[in-house]
Amino acid sequence: MRILGIDPGYGRMGYGIIEKTKGNQWRVLVYGCLNTEAKKPFIERLSEIKNKVDTLAKKYKPEVMGVEKLFFFKNAKTAMDVGQARGVILLSGIEQKMKVHEYTPLQIKQAITGYGKAEKKQMQKMVGMILGLKQKIKSDDAADALAVALCTAQSIWMEKLK
Amino acid sequence: MRILGIDPGYGRMGYGIIEKTKGNQWRVLVYGCLNTEAKKPFIERLSEIKNKVDTLAKKYKPEVMGVEKLFFFKNAKTAMDVGQARGVILLSGIEQKMKVHEYTPLQIKQAITGYGKAEKKQMQKMVGMILGLKQKIKSDDAADALAVALCTAQSIWMEKLK
Repeated sequence: MRILGIDPGYGRMGYGIIEKTKGNQWRVLVYGCLNTEAKKPFIERLSEIKNKVDTLAKKYKPEVMGVEKLFFFKNAKTAMDVGQARGVILLSGIEQKMKVHEYTPLQIKQAITGYGKAEKKQMQKMVGMILGLKQKIKSDDAADALAVALCTAQSIWMEKLK
Repeated sequence: MRILGIDPGYGRMGYGIIEKTKGNQWRVLVYGCLNTEAKKPFIERLSEIKNKVDTLAKKYKPEVMGVEKLFFFKNAKTAMDVGQARGVILLSGIEQKMKVHEYTPLQIKQAITGYGKAEKKQMQKMVGMILGLKQKIKSDDAADALAVALCTAQSIWMEKLK
């Protein structure tokens, strides 16, 4: 099984794909961060985001997509813009026949560190350890995306154990 | 020239297509409101919205799309959800090769009634008069969508006169 994790955003979108090796063990296939240019028209940036997720889905064929669910924003404008980016990400999920899971930052932190108030650095360290990465993940957004993917993996695993 | 106007929303999305007859005169080709069911998963509703806009674009081939731009919401959750719907609408615009215009409610009111604080009923009456409709537009969302289309038409007309 392969899971695509996404940390949604319109300026920076983190992504990461993990693959099950055995039991509940996972390895990384790819991760990164898509940057869209602020000077470009917003709809072009939306289109780039959609294309990136479509391309990842077509290349790696993940069956499941995990997307971070956000509730708090600086203002309605930011919520709207992140929502627009998130809309095209979810649309890619359904078009590319992925099963879409959504988790709040709290759920993700709890899944990774067992603690809802874990700091960003702790989270990233745990993600790297769980996935056996030798190098530090440079992009915060990519690390967040891998965290969502792992949270999705754990939730599927727990569901299976029931 | 044909213009597709959209009043974005995830529960109800208003739409209306107008066609230029001569000069700056316009007639209605189609209008309506897409309702998506609250009990359905949100991503299915997003997919329905995308399909509806794609279908309208393919059937009527509007060159331009006008979409209402929103800034104020009850809360971040609503802004996020409307944003998600708006994201897939804009994406359809770019995929279907429409030129996308966006206008705030204030701009739309001013374009239709010449007055930024016009009431909803006045707006709808004006939209009906301008388009020579014999019947009252039943759906508020459809009327709003036709208003955006007319605002887009006027803005293109003004641009041409410059």
